[in-house]
Amino acid sequence: MINLIEKKKRNDELTRSEITDYIQALTAGEIPDYQSAALLMAIRLNGMTLQETSDLTEAMRDSGSRADLSDIPGIKVDKHSTGGVADTTTLITIPVAAACGVSIAKMSGRGLGHTGGTLDKQESIPGYRIGLTQNEFRKVIAGCGCSVIGQTGELAPADKILYALRDVTATVDSLPLIASSIMSKKLASGSNALILDVKTGNGAFLPTEAQAIELAKVMVDTGNRCGVRTAALITDMNQPLGRAIGNSLEVIEACEILRDATSGRLTETALNLAAAMIFLAEKAPDFNSALDCAKAALSNGSAFARLQEMVRLHGGNPQSLVDHSLLPTAAEIKEIRSPASGWIKGIQTDRIGRAAMELGAGRKSKMDQVDLSAGIWMETELGDRVEKGDLLGRFHFNDPHKAAKAEKIFLDSFFYSEKKPKINYQTIYRSYGIQE
Amino acid sequence: MINLIEKKKRNDELTRSEITDYIQALTAGEIPDYQSAALLMAIRLNGMTLQETSDLTEAMRDSGSRADLSDIPGIKVDKHSTGGVADTTTLITIPVAAACGVSIAKMSGRGLGHTGGTLDKQESIPGYRIGLTQNEFRKVIAGCGCSVIGQTGELAPADKILYALRDVTATVDSLPLIASSIMSKKLASGSNALILDVKTGNGAFLPTEAQAIELAKVMVDTGNRCGVRTAALITDMNQPLGRAIGNSLEVIEACEILRDATSGRLTETALNLAAAMIFLAEKAPDFNSALDCAKAALSNGSAFARLQEMVRLHGGNPQSLVDHSLLPTAAEIKEIRSPASGWIKGIQTDRIGRAAMELGAGRKSKMDQVDLSAGIWMETELGDRVEKGDLLGRFHFNDPHKAAKAEKIFLDSFFYSEKKPKINYQTIYRSYGIQE
Repeated sequence: MINLIEKKKRNDELTRSEITDYIQALTAGEIPDYQSAALLMAIRLNGMTLQETSDLTEAMRDSGSRADLSDIPGIKVDKHSTGGVADTTTLITIPVAAACGVSIAKMSGRGLGHTGGTLDKQESIPGYRIGLTQNEFRKVIAGCGCSVIGQTGELAPADKILYALRDVTATVDSLPLIASSIMSKKLASGSNALILDVKTGNGAFLPTEAQAIELAKVMVDTGNRCGVRTAALITDMNQPLGRAIGNSLEVIEACEILRDATSGRLTETALNLAAAMIFLAEKAPDFNSALDCAKAALSNGSAFARLQEMVRLHGGNPQSLVDHSLLPTAAEIKEIRSPASGWIKGIQTDRIGRAAMELGAGRKSKMDQVDLSAGIWMETELGDRVEKGDLLGRFHFNDPHKAAKAEKIFLDSFFYSEKKPKINYQTIYRSYGIQE
Repeated sequence: MINLIEKKKRNDELTRSEITDYIQALTAGEIPDYQSAALLMAIRLNGMTLQETSDLTEAMRDSGSRADLSDIPGIKVDKHSTGGVADTTTLITIPVAAACGVSIAKMSGRGLGHTGGTLDKQESIPGYRIGLTQNEFRKVIAGCGCSVIGQTGELAPADKILYALRDVTATVDSLPLIASSIMSKKLASGSNALILDVKTGNGAFLPTEAQAIELAKVMVDTGNRCGVRTAALITDMNQPLGRAIGNSLEVIEACEILRDATSGRLTETALNLAAAMIFLAEKAPDFNSALDCAKAALSNGSAFARLQEMVRLHGGNPQSLVDHSLLPTAAEIKEIRSPASGWIKGIQTDRIGRAAMELGAGRKSKMDQVDLSAGIWMETELGDRVEKGDLLGRFHFNDPHKAAKAEKIFLDSFFYSEKKPKINYQTIYRSYGIQE
């Protein structure tokens, strides 16, 4: 083990068997934490080659059980987002892709964040069960082409050990370690293809576009080296993507978009991700045809029908997707109004997310209970002209004490300009792994 | 603590209070090993400024008890060597410097190495006690000006904790960590001035001259910043310094040099170190006068008289310094002869040291017992012409099994050339902290 640390310290490339032996010993509990900590810092400071990253990912993938989806016909396509604010894409992308013939057998964890994850959002639908048996899971996919359930079994336990250590040794922010952590779990969950949504901007985990590009490239390379066809889109997170930030609120926004084929940034991002999945599943000859197919599934109502069917098959009440009063509803709604006049030249997106978390929409720690009805509905976006007293957003909450703190954070997130700002806005910046 | 690691990871300078708080918490057992390990690797890869190194050294110095020598009159000068093969200097330098009026109140640890340390060498003298009380220690110094005893109390316990961790995390080879480890213990041992003998060459801990220079500069800077007048010589370790490698053998060589004022590389190094100590103790106006004083003390016999007196005051038999049959003697002596003819163009010095260790002269681990009589007496040096069958050295040993292994290592240490090699030999390469 000292030789392994020594080698990485000297910035020499580790071999596949060195990495595999390390991860096996780590998983078996045979490596003292201090040796892993020294290795992680050496990796953080000296980096890893693409080959090392791929070898590490495969070793972590193989450290626990792997889901076997081979009995489900066709190419199964998974999706992963690096996380953002008002990132409701999964609830839209999955029924759109399924309506175009893609098989999606997705397993999801809960995680921490501004809002809950897809599992929490689904659970805001009355009756919806995310804890299906493997048999029920397959029946849902046979019925509607898609299902997202809670993770069963322990995928990539080596990642869990390393992540806990990275968290307390200032080694979270290492691209090869981030990439292998994400990819090991995704590769263990049994799909044949994977679309990555790598966010960039002030609401993203990696703020600069250069970092996002680097992470996307490493993950696409790793996935493909490990036998899972992988592509990535780099998408904008310089303001909340959709209007809803919260669990039942995001279900409402997803339903509105699927029902009414509303256009906008969230729609555009969701459709592009769905198109990438359709393309990876070989349900279209090229990306543009795939995008046409996705748009048609949205506008002809077939995507919404898929969502309704998925909810029904999961035991949820499909009526709640139309009559939103059946979803969890907050006791209070407060209009948050602008304290100044001007053009919105910037939105500190991660702070908007924190405001939603303060209202109860997300988890700060794993023990926290998510308030499914709480959140924020945005009423303004970048480049808007607002006058003092104009509506910026609406808070949905049950605890007025939380609202006061959230309001300050929320109002501090907007930056005004006297002149009309130039917003060079894009929803999708780049793509990797998709021939267009 | 995470912030501290984060800061060093970003290569920002740590403040004095950050370093002090860390070392205090470390000594109190409040820092998990994995966090120290990550910090150590970040220090190893990003380095430390001179100010950080000095702050770390002071914090480690203050982590345990500090020796108080203020009741001993005059400037007390300590000596430290980074360690080499046939490095008998202390046994010569100390009586020479004492004969010139320098007060030396040295505390020494045992350590690992090719031979034992100064304590072991002293213990090969019959009756010699290294475990004096503080009162006895002062009486010896009052009587002869110098004494070397075993460390009492725990000096710089934080260094002990960090060193154990560095040893298992591949972070031993960090200049600021090496410098602060050495200097914290030296600064805690109460002297007012310090001469450092930094070895360079293939028998030294740091083989290249550039590394030795860098370490010497950092340690000289650190000592002076911390209020101890510090100087350093960079001395050669491209072949064994003296002829004797072993404990009683080195006592014999030191006595021969002191008795007969023999010249040679060991003598030159020892006299220069003594001169630096005389200069630091302000017993001479400049280095050259100090060197003259040292040479006189050697040639007029006053240095040898000091050694005899020191031995007597420590309870040892001074007669053994003249009649070496009173010292521990090995059961067997074997002549090791050259398997080839040629010019000696290179000697792999660390291997010669390993051969001596195999014979029993040193410790591989702290549990090992040193064989005080075992060792090697060199009969050749760099640039010599030898014919096949000529004597290279003599092994002194008690265990013939050990001798066979040692012989192979020893013979593999010599490199021959058909042409007479150019040896650009120097004993002292550079000095720092001494105005000449």
